[in-house]
Amino acid sequence: MPERKTLHLTAFMRPVSLHSGAWRYPGSYPDANFNLAHLKSFIQKLEAAKFDAFFMADHLAVLNMPVEALKRSHTVTSFEPFTLLSALSQVTEKIGLAATASTTYDEPYHIARRFASLDHLSNGRAAWNIVTTGNPESAKNFGLDEHVEHSERYKRAREFYDVVTGLWDSFADDAFIRNQESGIYLDPEKMHVLNHRGDELKVRGPLNIARPVQGWPVIVQAGQSEPGRQLAAETAEVVFCSPRDLESAKSLYADIKGRAAAAGRSGETLKILPAALIVVGDTVEDAKNKRLKLDSLVHYDSAIASLSISLGTDASGFDPDAPLPADIPDTNASKTSRAGVLKLAEDEKLTVRQLAGRYGGYSGLAFVGTPETIAQDMEVWLNEEAADGFTVCFPFLPQGLDDVTERLVPELQRRGLFRKDYEGTTLREHLGLARPKNQFFT
Amino acid sequence: MPERKTLHLTAFMRPVSLHSGAWRYPGSYPDANFNLAHLKSFIQKLEAAKFDAFFMADHLAVLNMPVEALKRSHTVTSFEPFTLLSALSQVTEKIGLAATASTTYDEPYHIARRFASLDHLSNGRAAWNIVTTGNPESAKNFGLDEHVEHSERYKRAREFYDVVTGLWDSFADDAFIRNQESGIYLDPEKMHVLNHRGDELKVRGPLNIARPVQGWPVIVQAGQSEPGRQLAAETAEVVFCSPRDLESAKSLYADIKGRAAAAGRSGETLKILPAALIVVGDTVEDAKNKRLKLDSLVHYDSAIASLSISLGTDASGFDPDAPLPADIPDTNASKTSRAGVLKLAEDEKLTVRQLAGRYGGYSGLAFVGTPETIAQDMEVWLNEEAADGFTVCFPFLPQGLDDVTERLVPELQRRGLFRKDYEGTTLREHLGLARPKNQFFT
Repeated sequence: MPERKTLHLTAFMRPVSLHSGAWRYPGSYPDANFNLAHLKSFIQKLEAAKFDAFFMADHLAVLNMPVEALKRSHTVTSFEPFTLLSALSQVTEKIGLAATASTTYDEPYHIARRFASLDHLSNGRAAWNIVTTGNPESAKNFGLDEHVEHSERYKRAREFYDVVTGLWDSFADDAFIRNQESGIYLDPEKMHVLNHRGDELKVRGPLNIARPVQGWPVIVQAGQSEPGRQLAAETAEVVFCSPRDLESAKSLYADIKGRAAAAGRSGETLKILPAALIVVGDTVEDAKNKRLKLDSLVHYDSAIASLSISLGTDASGFDPDAPLPADIPDTNASKTSRAGVLKLAEDEKLTVRQLAGRYGGYSGLAFVGTPETIAQDMEVWLNEEAADGFTVCFPFLPQGLDDVTERLVPELQRRGLFRKDYEGTTLREHLGLARPKNQFFT
Repeated sequence: MPERKTLHLTAFMRPVSLHSGAWRYPGSYPDANFNLAHLKSFIQKLEAAKFDAFFMADHLAVLNMPVEALKRSHTVTSFEPFTLLSALSQVTEKIGLAATASTTYDEPYHIARRFASLDHLSNGRAAWNIVTTGNPESAKNFGLDEHVEHSERYKRAREFYDVVTGLWDSFADDAFIRNQESGIYLDPEKMHVLNHRGDELKVRGPLNIARPVQGWPVIVQAGQSEPGRQLAAETAEVVFCSPRDLESAKSLYADIKGRAAAAGRSGETLKILPAALIVVGDTVEDAKNKRLKLDSLVHYDSAIASLSISLGTDASGFDPDAPLPADIPDTNASKTSRAGVLKLAEDEKLTVRQLAGRYGGYSGLAFVGTPETIAQDMEVWLNEEAADGFTVCFPFLPQGLDDVTERLVPELQRRGLFRKDYEGTTLREHLGLARPKNQFFT
């Protein structure tokens, strides 16, 4: 009998909730995003629940938003990923630690070195989420007036990956001898000088740190654009993505796995983990009410602005407590997104205010239900090849996280869909990924 | 009665010993430099002994040395400072955490952010050792063929400091309100956009993290060149330096404090902490023998090469076990350094082999004696205004560190020269430095 397919779960933790109203939810910690004691507790709960990894997104700027939205945003102050994950590596033992780092606004020597260091400090639990940083606000913090053009960013990213992985292979695993008697510390035959000279980058090497415990930290990639998918297919071991529903997820899954196959890779070496907000209730109705309550905590001004963008029409004059007017003009802008709003309004019978809260809060993929219904849905996604697992987004903290670790995870375990204990000690082992061979040494 | 002047002590910990033979000393850990469990134990011992800070030097390359020296060097593999110090911040509570970061090969936004993050994670214990990275090997890892010229590096460093401190002041201390009821997270009036546009750097801001606990992490500087001293006088709160003896230390001390006064600063706001190797013995003779033993562990080939450089003449043909020949030719190269070798040979009656071991091992300032003689010497340095304390370099680990924390420190405490407990919780408090006012908010 073939082994049952199981889910991989990583926790999206920067910000601790993607929902902009999360910090106001009754009983939630308003400073959850920037309180080390809370973050320690969160990661320890996630480890106790056997999550694969704790995932830190990142931004190299205060997010660009109107001041009225900014003053209500819990995203403004955050720990830098490497310092936070290194700290958290000392209060955990097994859970993976995924940090985002930019190939556009950083140097490959720095990135290779920091991930190698985190991998050593954590005994093989580091992962690099490769991003090219599209946000033009970031460019302005790094000496530029305009952000770097998309295809140029991806060209550099691809070469950057080659340099970083080349630097990680600077030393054979047995390069360090440390024989006190003979006085030989290192076998210089087992040190490789990269001497990279490409179109975008010139880096000599070697790296000044031993090869990472995992060989290479796990490679994560999130781009959904054409070059983003291609980069993922060629390099990623985990893909973080944001499909809106099962059908689009299946198509994205097939596309990326197909590209990977075309690049000569087995589908098993690449795990696709869509982001999903999970709201657990005692009943489906209870869960839906939690979500409505959460959406209601988004300030109406920014909520209605988000809804207007999605509708492609100014919604600020609509009656907040009535359904959407029937005669919304059809504009050229965002036809698909407009249709999505209309469908949602119809399906869930939402008022303008509720719709606005949804679009101003978090309108991506969500599983809202009981532990049983959510587990059932996740099994469908797994079996229908829409996902190899999920990047779990929490609605609010700590309760929304506890609901997942204490209620959903046991249900997934009961169904044989999720591990009851870690299979190994490194993140590669949790994900079932092989340790890469050193390119320069056997 | 005026308060007794007391010493500040920081521990130089990258590498864990500057002495190239340290890792071979009997009983020492050969992997002390790259073993997290050891490093945790070292910092916890230093904290128990009430050291001001744990100091990580840094290099952005494998040090350039001939392969025969490289294969014997314990410096090749090291943790990256931010990842290591962030990890160590979670196993300590009071000791300062000083990281080196380069103004030449990094970006002010990254540096400001990482130090702010480390300062928050450690509850106010971070310090930034500003370096301009002179090592040409580093340039080759960052896209350059030649290293950046000295005055250009210092020009950028000075402006870099303004940008980093400006970014640290992005938010008033009371900017974050987090009122769940009103939904106001942040007072945007208390956020400052830097908009820096200088000759060297263009950085908009604001930083995406709250103002550091210490206001600004403590500023450390180590340059001894003319522009290095000037930068220190204008910006540094701790100066790490390497005078060879009491007289040169007094002159350096007076020069830097004088420059600081000329820049309008009180001498109290700048602590000068020369690097000193400390070798403790039961008797002075015992300590000297430990040092001779340690020097003897440097491989003769690299030791004699170092001696030849210091002498300005090829010493490889000399009889290793005889005193220096009397007729060493006087060359133009390194007159001062040659005189230093001759004086040392005379003072300590060393053979060529022993001299070579000294120069190949560590030939900087050292206190070698009993706890009593070393404490006495340190008191002289303090009272004669040669130092405000020391950056302690250990001869080998763990014993050489234990000798300092368990034998020298109690003797210093007995004499009232060193604290018996921390005065506060932040590194600024340990050093007696005020928390800087925010430039943009009162």
